[in-house]
Amino acid sequence: MKAYQEMTKEELEELKAELDTQYADAQAKGLKLDMSRGKPSISQLDTVRGMMDVLASTSDYRNEDGIDCRNYGALEGIKEARVLMGEIMGVPYDQVIVCGNSSLNVMYDMITRSMLLGVLGETPWCKLDKVKFLCPAPGYDRHFAITEQLGIEMIPVAMTEQGPDMDVVEQYVNNDEAVKGIWCVPKYSNPQGISYSDETVRRFAALKPAAKDFRIYWDNAYSVHHLYDDRQDEILEIISECEKAGNPDLVFEFASTSKISFSGSGISAIACSKANLEFIKNAMTIQTIGPDKMNQLRHARYFKDLSGVKEQMKKHADLIRPKFESVLSCLEKELDGLGIGTWIKPNGGYFITFEAMEGCAKAIVEKCKAAGVVLTKAGACFPYGKDPKDSVIRIAPSFPTPEEMAQATELFVLCVKLASVEKLLEVKKGA
Amino acid sequence: MKAYQEMTKEELEELKAELDTQYADAQAKGLKLDMSRGKPSISQLDTVRGMMDVLASTSDYRNEDGIDCRNYGALEGIKEARVLMGEIMGVPYDQVIVCGNSSLNVMYDMITRSMLLGVLGETPWCKLDKVKFLCPAPGYDRHFAITEQLGIEMIPVAMTEQGPDMDVVEQYVNNDEAVKGIWCVPKYSNPQGISYSDETVRRFAALKPAAKDFRIYWDNAYSVHHLYDDRQDEILEIISECEKAGNPDLVFEFASTSKISFSGSGISAIACSKANLEFIKNAMTIQTIGPDKMNQLRHARYFKDLSGVKEQMKKHADLIRPKFESVLSCLEKELDGLGIGTWIKPNGGYFITFEAMEGCAKAIVEKCKAAGVVLTKAGACFPYGKDPKDSVIRIAPSFPTPEEMAQATELFVLCVKLASVEKLLEVKKGA
Repeated sequence: MKAYQEMTKEELEELKAELDTQYADAQAKGLKLDMSRGKPSISQLDTVRGMMDVLASTSDYRNEDGIDCRNYGALEGIKEARVLMGEIMGVPYDQVIVCGNSSLNVMYDMITRSMLLGVLGETPWCKLDKVKFLCPAPGYDRHFAITEQLGIEMIPVAMTEQGPDMDVVEQYVNNDEAVKGIWCVPKYSNPQGISYSDETVRRFAALKPAAKDFRIYWDNAYSVHHLYDDRQDEILEIISECEKAGNPDLVFEFASTSKISFSGSGISAIACSKANLEFIKNAMTIQTIGPDKMNQLRHARYFKDLSGVKEQMKKHADLIRPKFESVLSCLEKELDGLGIGTWIKPNGGYFITFEAMEGCAKAIVEKCKAAGVVLTKAGACFPYGKDPKDSVIRIAPSFPTPEEMAQATELFVLCVKLASVEKLLEVKKGA
Repeated sequence: MKAYQEMTKEELEELKAELDTQYADAQAKGLKLDMSRGKPSISQLDTVRGMMDVLASTSDYRNEDGIDCRNYGALEGIKEARVLMGEIMGVPYDQVIVCGNSSLNVMYDMITRSMLLGVLGETPWCKLDKVKFLCPAPGYDRHFAITEQLGIEMIPVAMTEQGPDMDVVEQYVNNDEAVKGIWCVPKYSNPQGISYSDETVRRFAALKPAAKDFRIYWDNAYSVHHLYDDRQDEILEIISECEKAGNPDLVFEFASTSKISFSGSGISAIACSKANLEFIKNAMTIQTIGPDKMNQLRHARYFKDLSGVKEQMKKHADLIRPKFESVLSCLEKELDGLGIGTWIKPNGGYFITFEAMEGCAKAIVEKCKAAGVVLTKAGACFPYGKDPKDSVIRIAPSFPTPEEMAQATELFVLCVKLASVEKLLEVKKGA
């Protein structure tokens, strides 16, 4: 098929008429599908049902240190859960605090703590005129929502195939004392599925921040979330890289089992240097009675170790992979060669990022919605919801069934075509 | 026996010699007991083991609204858990948000939220020069720790048998715009076991705060924690009292099942007006993916309703009551008529408050510690850890076994006697 840009006005108008008919037919189907959030499917959740039996009423609820997990105590989490989460992140257990069911909340707490108490003895951010965060974009909307809510100025940094543009990162971090953090999803990034190259990680570890309380917020959300057995990304372990570079306190790393066990009832963790850990523990002593250790014990006894987690993730991959492939094959079949969009084939994670022609993302998302398919809001992957090119769309294939996914993608490509034709006609009219 | 104050120097010296011998004997026993925290005993935790079977792997994990409790969503908690926590507090479910395992953390979040975002559109407290909290004292040390950590000035308010001295409360709240909150444990208060009278609750509800963003922090931690079947305190329900008084937004109420089910793995809740609730929900949308709904479902299915909770609390009472009675009878037997201490007999809660002679609390706690019995730090029940009279000691009988409790109390009364004698001799020497 001919690339759309090469079509004459007449060809485009003819095409539009055809697409309009198809779209009307699609609308008539009354679809009701949601591809908006990285939410595990029911089948995925069912793979871990067995976890609900490991703490049956006849169990011994003491952990390997003899702590009764039902009672108060063990602010930093129980040993075996710290070991497990440490293995997932590649970090020794004594640099890990295991928390509740939401790593997002752990990040939020880390930021509010920095606002109110300061980081390791530095001035609390709420006393400063200006606090800035770097935001590799496209990125995770809920990261950006935290910094936006708290009045932290967000500076977008472009993503490359190797991770964030490190020239820009270094320029800001090493020179601007108001820059206190950067949001990173280093592996199978949300939404692009990009994994940071070794060079990128090393450049992160070697930063020379102008601000003593600058930290990298390393949200390692998809560390074991591979789609394939034979095509897996690996990234360098950031905490030891920072140590090697003489910057041991530079990073806070986050992880959770939300997309390993149950999305609402997993366990989460923060890993960092021992100095950071002590600071966090001291603050947490006032904040909480401690985490839900029964859920930690449940996870540790069920998964046992990293190999148990990997087994579990293979089951997830078997369920998610066909959906990714269904989306990707539909994109290829329907859009290849048309010049109206590009996409990345990730090896893991939860998303496919589609880059439409400039100025088309909002229109595509609206058209999908009007025909019953909800996508993540256009712009959501950018600070303040502003995609400068209005071109990036995040597709989340995990929740729908494969059949629903196929239907939804068919509609999606139709909307891409239609919005692109309309945009090109608009341009021609303007010219 | 003769009151100590009436003894001559010689009588006191003779008594001291006798007590010194007893103390040396006690030290030789090498006790190792902890009466420092309101921590449920293992037997109490065992009463609720059955809860761990209700979500076995064959269960339907959808709640009554059809929500899959394993997945993301339901920020305000699941319906049946909201109903249950509402019943415990006496509040309709739609004014309740059910959260994670720590009501302390819910309170902490409420304060940090007020610091950073402001309350219902008012100026964030971190932008103000001065923020003050009223602290009825003796009170709960972990409340005071929160306000101290965040640099909020704490003003002690004396406790009476009816609750906080309301003349003082009204004076501050209705006139000082910097006063933004008051910490209350309205029923079986920590540590005295005092329940607020109806008049006290009505005066709270009728406050006319100088600050629009003043809130009562109503920590209803012991609402169903009776010790006796036939002697139970009841308090007025504060939220409806505030409504009646035309002050619907005046109060945030907190509760948890930490001392109903598992202390580390319960569920917690905040209840308030719908305007407050919307404000909190909006802030929480950014903060977290939502609570652990599986644990909420587990609690709701196990307890079913308030009568299930009450049944459970009878089992707890049967285990705790003998310990309270063992402490109280030992105090009576050993200290009655000596004029060296008073105590309150509570109808519920987790503590017995002992009021020693002025200037003796620290010495008693130290002597106990040196003989192997850990008590809550003297002064802990006061803002900044400063008991102006150095006289209040909190006894927490729940965790030790009844035998341990008897041993610990015997040592305690011995230390009370010894410290009192020493204090009186010191006074006589000074005179």
